[in-house]
Amino acid sequence: MGFGSSRVTEPDLSRLLAEIGEQPAVVARLLERQTESVQSLARLVRDRDPRAIVLVARGSSDNASVYGRYLFEVCNRRLTSLAAPSGLTLYGSGPRLDETVVIGVSQSGRGEDVVSYVREARKQGALTVAIVNDEESPLASTAEWKLACMAGPEISIPATKTVTAQMTLLAMLSHALSEPDDGYGGLEPLPKALEQALARRGEAAELARRLAKTTLAAVIGRGFAFPPALEIALKLKETSYTRAEPFSAADFLHGPVALMEPNFSALLVDVGGRSSEAAQEIAAAVSGRGGQPNTLRATELGLTEPYAPIAVLVLGQLLAIELALVLGLDPARPRGLQKVTSTR
Amino acid sequence: MGFGSSRVTEPDLSRLLAEIGEQPAVVARLLERQTESVQSLARLVRDRDPRAIVLVARGSSDNASVYGRYLFEVCNRRLTSLAAPSGLTLYGSGPRLDETVVIGVSQSGRGEDVVSYVREARKQGALTVAIVNDEESPLASTAEWKLACMAGPEISIPATKTVTAQMTLLAMLSHALSEPDDGYGGLEPLPKALEQALARRGEAAELARRLAKTTLAAVIGRGFAFPPALEIALKLKETSYTRAEPFSAADFLHGPVALMEPNFSALLVDVGGRSSEAAQEIAAAVSGRGGQPNTLRATELGLTEPYAPIAVLVLGQLLAIELALVLGLDPARPRGLQKVTSTR
Repeated sequence: MGFGSSRVTEPDLSRLLAEIGEQPAVVARLLERQTESVQSLARLVRDRDPRAIVLVARGSSDNASVYGRYLFEVCNRRLTSLAAPSGLTLYGSGPRLDETVVIGVSQSGRGEDVVSYVREARKQGALTVAIVNDEESPLASTAEWKLACMAGPEISIPATKTVTAQMTLLAMLSHALSEPDDGYGGLEPLPKALEQALARRGEAAELARRLAKTTLAAVIGRGFAFPPALEIALKLKETSYTRAEPFSAADFLHGPVALMEPNFSALLVDVGGRSSEAAQEIAAAVSGRGGQPNTLRATELGLTEPYAPIAVLVLGQLLAIELALVLGLDPARPRGLQKVTSTR
Repeated sequence: MGFGSSRVTEPDLSRLLAEIGEQPAVVARLLERQTESVQSLARLVRDRDPRAIVLVARGSSDNASVYGRYLFEVCNRRLTSLAAPSGLTLYGSGPRLDETVVIGVSQSGRGEDVVSYVREARKQGALTVAIVNDEESPLASTAEWKLACMAGPEISIPATKTVTAQMTLLAMLSHALSEPDDGYGGLEPLPKALEQALARRGEAAELARRLAKTTLAAVIGRGFAFPPALEIALKLKETSYTRAEPFSAADFLHGPVALMEPNFSALLVDVGGRSSEAAQEIAAAVSGRGGQPNTLRATELGLTEPYAPIAVLVLGQLLAIELALVLGLDPARPRGLQKVTSTR
């Protein structure tokens, strides 16, 4: 399923595992130290009542942004757009952004098109926010507001704890924008849930051994399970060179289900609630064509459906590592990946 | 590269080729008969000055909508969001849509979540528009405004002339919203450009023979070349079961370029202007890793960069058919594809 190979170097792998292992502490720190800042921002957003929220990001941060969009639209009823920054950076012309909230999301804070977009938005009078790990980065100094990920240095090439931190900050902001009784509970259970997810490495290894015997063709999620499906597909690609594409359940059933046949597998993401029904439906469709469905499930970790995507991502990270190891690849050193996305 | 096989049945293939061949006439008809209607709508949009344009669609129509977003943001500076209708249909809660323009795009006009989204938007006071081929469809009767594709019945499973019609209507609306001197010219050259594109079938066949010897891993475009890259990747998947993923140039260079090695190929989409520079840059990166770059180029057909995506899509359709034929597959009868996307 993978191809090529590079020796697994123990220090790199240990570091990647250590960074993944820090995630419960990272989210606990955010809940403890960033709640006040997030609440101040939420008050400002309520006061300004922007015409839209615009999220701008690349790569893993873009996947975190897709999650933010589901949160803001479903839980907060705020129209949310995922920016196409190339309009601005390639053609020098983008949308008018006055009366919007523009949130740049970037681990490094150095992605050129994200920084340019936020700079332009601020010039036009948007409320600008940077969700960054590096507080000294260009993005952090370009935006009016800064929400720091406080994840510490991330050395491994595959982004893990910084993505979890971005998702957590977006969830905290959504929660702060919510009515008190929205039925979704809060984020307090998150650190413990991530610890429980981390304890399931053996299960991930077992799943990896099964998947390694197949061609993994798709990672599928519906609703709140779709954003983590995007990021899990990316992790699998980065660590194990799988070519599994992410799909929403609807799009998968419309066409790509045709790719399923014996020896092909699909990974379904289940974060509870409505996403569970979709996962079951897809599993049946995949089986019906002789393919092999497997499910990553984060339904018994004490989180409601809007917040469970953060926990299921941790399961996906473990799977990506274990799959690389089964295939004899080095999950910590993907070929050709750069840590910072710079585009002209 | 493909797998499985189904006999090529001549009547189906002839019909698909006939539908593709109608495209110059379809766009000529739209330019002749829909310009007035589009201009009335454009006046209304200018008057209302909506806080955002929201495009809602699935599958090929979603790719047409991504094109619409580039047009409206780059050429008209209007903030444009691609809706995630599952928020509304799965969770019963979506963004507030008052003071927006919501455009549902659907060949059949029967996609349930698109219809639900437009219905909810209209209830909330949005200016609602249906871009549909079937004028008697639920979507057509749900939206306040209707822009008919006038493409005639499309029987073949892969959507071709209806997508071209959707893109043309979006381009006409963008043009009608533009300042007269935006430097992008008009759409008058479009019918002739599509005729010239159709005349390049031999070239497409030659490219298909080259690609068939490789693993086509990616279809890549930047800026205005990105939306047709999405749709061309989908056509290749539908007709030839390739697993080539679409990428923006930026995302491809950030990671998936690592997949390139001898025997792997990438298809670059070039619609002139800034997209040409990106195509050259990616070609060099692919070659640099020993992979095989190939370019679909629509730069000498008399269209400016914002309108050339419609013509390059026709080249992509021809390539998808020729590739299926080289592989002994039936391009007109993809396995498992349904014509209408219905999702719960």
